[in-house]
Amino acid sequence: MLLCRIKKITMDKLNFTKGDGLIPAIVQDHQTGEVLMLAYINEESWYKTLETGKAHYWSRSRNKLWLKGESSGHVQVIREILVDCDEDTVVFKVEQAGGAACHKGYASCFFRKVENGSFNVEGRLVFDPKEVYRK
Amino acid sequence: MLLCRIKKITMDKLNFTKGDGLIPAIVQDHQTGEVLMLAYINEESWYKTLETGKAHYWSRSRNKLWLKGESSGHVQVIREILVDCDEDTVVFKVEQAGGAACHKGYASCFFRKVENGSFNVEGRLVFDPKEVYRK
Repeated sequence: MLLCRIKKITMDKLNFTKGDGLIPAIVQDHQTGEVLMLAYINEESWYKTLETGKAHYWSRSRNKLWLKGESSGHVQVIREILVDCDEDTVVFKVEQAGGAACHKGYASCFFRKVENGSFNVEGRLVFDPKEVYRK
Repeated sequence: MLLCRIKKITMDKLNFTKGDGLIPAIVQDHQTGEVLMLAYINEESWYKTLETGKAHYWSRSRNKLWLKGESSGHVQVIREILVDCDEDTVVFKVEQAGGAACHKGYASCFFRKVENGSFNVEGRLVFDPKEVYRK
């Protein structure tokens, strides 16, 4: 724990001051480059992600730390992390367990394309949410 | 103008209610899939982007509508737009004029990689910001 604290002190820092302590994390498939989702991280989820190698976010709707995949099993193993010029956005390049990041069952949350003002589904449906999220 | 208003009424809508009227736009190179930057759009910049085919954002630092490239000439021509499951994030797939999106001269704003707690530069430097942004 002490070592862990020392390590945090010497690390380069992200800037969590702008958006109520949250910054966006863009999640990309590490092999195909497909953008899978966007979620938000706070400082706690940032360090948790670095420590565990699994993507942790801050759930704005549930107001709690969120290990992606804690319900579905579809965890995201971190392969690489990139930081932007302002240190207020990151890219997580991940290996997506189960082949789908979206809670609606699509490979990517960005499964719709804007065409003439309409949002048309063109993404790949991988699982049935009713099966995966049933309690 | 009237036609334009009617068109907006019939279009599918993004949800601008969560983050003070702003939602994130992930900007991706339409050919390579490289994530170039992340910026924010409000409703005005969204419609401006759709109408002109060039990426418009809302500058949080200058608090104004921002045509990307208005100073540098490095505009982003929209090739495709994707919308996420919650309608509160978009992906702009663009053709980046000048080959660089970052105001620091790099192809991508995500020019640093996190390695053992350090942010190490590994991105491609395309231009000298002092040359491009001089007045």
